Amino acid sequence: MANKIEARLPRGMRDILPQKMILRRYVIGVIESVFERFGFEPLQTPALELSETLMGKYGPEAEKLIYDARHREGKEDLSLRYDLSVPLSRVVAMYPELTKPFKRYQIAPVWRAERPQKGRYREFYQCDADIVGTRSMLADAEIVTMIYTILTRLGFKQFETKINNRKILTAIGEYAGVPPNLLGGLYRSIDKLEKIGPAAVREELVKNEIPAAVVEKILDLISIPGDDLAAVRTRLGGIAAAAAGIDELEQLVRFVSEAGVAAENLKVDFTMVRGLEYYTGPIFETVVTEPKIGSLTGGGRYDELIGLFSKQSLPATGTTIGIERIIDVMDELHMFPPEVGQTVTQVLVTVFDEARRADSIRVISELRRLGIDAEIWLDLDSLGKQLKYAAAKGIPFAVIVGPDEATAGAATLRDLGTGEQTQLAQGELGAEIAARLSRAG
Amino acid sequence: MANKIEARLPRGMRDILPQKMILRRYVIGVIESVFERFGFEPLQTPALELSETLMGKYGPEAEKLIYDARHREGKEDLSLRYDLSVPLSRVVAMYPELTKPFKRYQIAPVWRAERPQKGRYREFYQCDADIVGTRSMLADAEIVTMIYTILTRLGFKQFETKINNRKILTAIGEYAGVPPNLLGGLYRSIDKLEKIGPAAVREELVKNEIPAAVVEKILDLISIPGDDLAAVRTRLGGIAAAAAGIDELEQLVRFVSEAGVAAENLKVDFTMVRGLEYYTGPIFETVVTEPKIGSLTGGGRYDELIGLFSKQSLPATGTTIGIERIIDVMDELHMFPPEVGQTVTQVLVTVFDEARRADSIRVISELRRLGIDAEIWLDLDSLGKQLKYAAAKGIPFAVIVGPDEATAGAATLRDLGTGEQTQLAQGELGAEIAARLSRAG
Repeated sequence: MANKIEARLPRGMRDILPQKMILRRYVIGVIESVFERFGFEPLQTPALELSETLMGKYGPEAEKLIYDARHREGKEDLSLRYDLSVPLSRVVAMYPELTKPFKRYQIAPVWRAERPQKGRYREFYQCDADIVGTRSMLADAEIVTMIYTILTRLGFKQFETKINNRKILTAIGEYAGVPPNLLGGLYRSIDKLEKIGPAAVREELVKNEIPAAVVEKILDLISIPGDDLAAVRTRLGGIAAAAAGIDELEQLVRFVSEAGVAAENLKVDFTMVRGLEYYTGPIFETVVTEPKIGSLTGGGRYDELIGLFSKQSLPATGTTIGIERIIDVMDELHMFPPEVGQTVTQVLVTVFDEARRADSIRVISELRRLGIDAEIWLDLDSLGKQLKYAAAKGIPFAVIVGPDEATAGAATLRDLGTGEQTQLAQGELGAEIAARLSRAG
Repeated sequence: MANKIEARLPRGMRDILPQKMILRRYVIGVIESVFERFGFEPLQTPALELSETLMGKYGPEAEKLIYDARHREGKEDLSLRYDLSVPLSRVVAMYPELTKPFKRYQIAPVWRAERPQKGRYREFYQCDADIVGTRSMLADAEIVTMIYTILTRLGFKQFETKINNRKILTAIGEYAGVPPNLLGGLYRSIDKLEKIGPAAVREELVKNEIPAAVVEKILDLISIPGDDLAAVRTRLGGIAAAAAGIDELEQLVRFVSEAGVAAENLKVDFTMVRGLEYYTGPIFETVVTEPKIGSLTGGGRYDELIGLFSKQSLPATGTTIGIERIIDVMDELHMFPPEVGQTVTQVLVTVFDEARRADSIRVISELRRLGIDAEIWLDLDSLGKQLKYAAAKGIPFAVIVGPDEATAGAATLRDLGTGEQTQLAQGELGAEIAARLSRAG
């Protein structure tokens, strides 16, 4: 075996220790259950893809961040996946027999060698749900409704899903009439409207060499409230893409409100821009408005991606849930419900001495059979040391089986929060602990 | 964007499509819940470790199978993890503040570039539970009891956990009195006793150049029944390691039976050999005896591994559950309970026509609020097409909201197994579906 070497992590990587894992698993559990509530099914793809599968999909800046992998005798060029969308497209192309619409979710790590910074890691989880195989706006509405359900179930209250449509953005470009090389700058400026206001947008547009007449035309357009689609329709009049985009948006909003999403959690905003290279129809992004924290989800309709691998493309729509950000925010804001404790263990069964150890083993076996998550003290130590361990770990209850109690078939139940002790028949312990836990949760 | 490229997987890698993922998630869910029932807590470590963390731990043959990774501007030598034990040891050394005993589980992929073959992949999940920080045999007993609980909960009946102790093997080596270079061959032959019988073991020993006198001595020793520890103790008489190993084994067996593990599921076998380089105390391995399938779990006590990273070593014991094998075996033997279906979706809400779509959206929203996993048909198609989709996916129920029903606030519930249809008030649908599902499961 090797010489002693220092225990350390690669740059930008992290371990997630049990206390934080318990929070993480709670969030993942809620999201998975909502995904399945909406009929999305789990998919697993390998972490390693052929490099050729990934290359050319993300642009050169992103591709610099991809990790390459190889084993010593391997002949294939492999890379660690950069997202879950390209693997989904590969899967849809590889298995044409998959029943459509194909609704899948995947919650899994991806790897990007970005400069490490607080809260940003080079391995992080993505959490995607997508529907492949239909152009129906009801599919997009299901995605938006599902995001609403997830964030509500996690305890977020003041949030809004902003929605727009790529086709409206196309129409705005056409309306502006600027040459293609200026379009990117135009969209970037418009996207900042909510953040920086119209005066600063004007400055940006000028700086981006948009002709003065166009600047005024655009400022006039974006002076229309973000959700006044009727006015946008009038203004963009004869542009076909505008009419199509607005029709889709109106249908989407109707379906989402029929599904019971509260109006205050939905905001149509025809100046919101996302993934111009990628999205083809509705686009959505959810932000928490109070407290003001960044974007928690983003997604939209992308009808072309799958065509990169397949003879025929398939329409698709979906969302990414920013699961790492959600976990961090919920932790900072203490949003976890009380039953999500510091530990999974609900009770520590102490061991009084060697002679009484068999009693403790029998007691814990029965508690576990009754569905209680329980630990037994493994060594022979003072009761004080055992209770100190339980307190340090945040275990809510301890059970003590001393010699007198063991003889009488009894046990002491100690509430480690209050210090209160109750003597009970061993056969009653399980029901009593279960009752107290359900009161506390 | 890139030219069209072929959608394919790297050699030895696989996708797990939803139908199989549902089985996989069931098994993982059962195992996680038993891990937590025993007070084990989740840990996550990154897939990429520094190469120096992994190298020198597994031996040169294994190290050939490790995948190296690198990003274009990275200066670190990285590798994909080969197992979950070395990352655990690194974690324990890095965070001395972790409360001991530290009981963690981790269910996560590892990567090994082995020659691909049926049922063997280069990315596969390992599933480990370990206890770090105590020499108590009760810790080993908890591991063995937990394995029993997991396999029982998964529906395995005829299985046995074979247990032995590394110290007894050491004593056998001492008893044989052969030079160190012959010890490996000696152990390999003994280990085959159950499989090939004493005559073939004799042949092997001779072939392995064990002196004739030693061969007879060893054959005489292994003629003792595997669980007759009293006889082994007598035979190995004054060898200290034998006495220590047998004491540990007897204590372990007592704890495990006090915890309620049935005697027929436990088998002491002093000829079983596992990981001589690695284990220091009890060793365990579980095999299903009927039908005869290979080993499903393996583990033991390893008191030195953590010392590779840390000034002081810590005693540790644990097990790997062969989760990939378990999933395959349960699938082949149809061991999944009936509620683990082909799909997560419990009901398809059909859409009659555009005018009735809003009714279907309202119905499905209510079903979901009641906790039913439901899909809505996203397009406007014939009812026949919608029901065909539900049948193809194995969805058990469909709901139909036609014009007459919608007007009356009613809906038709169709059992897709029997074809039977029932008309109900929309408000009663959820309770009726829940009742039928719980009867079926």
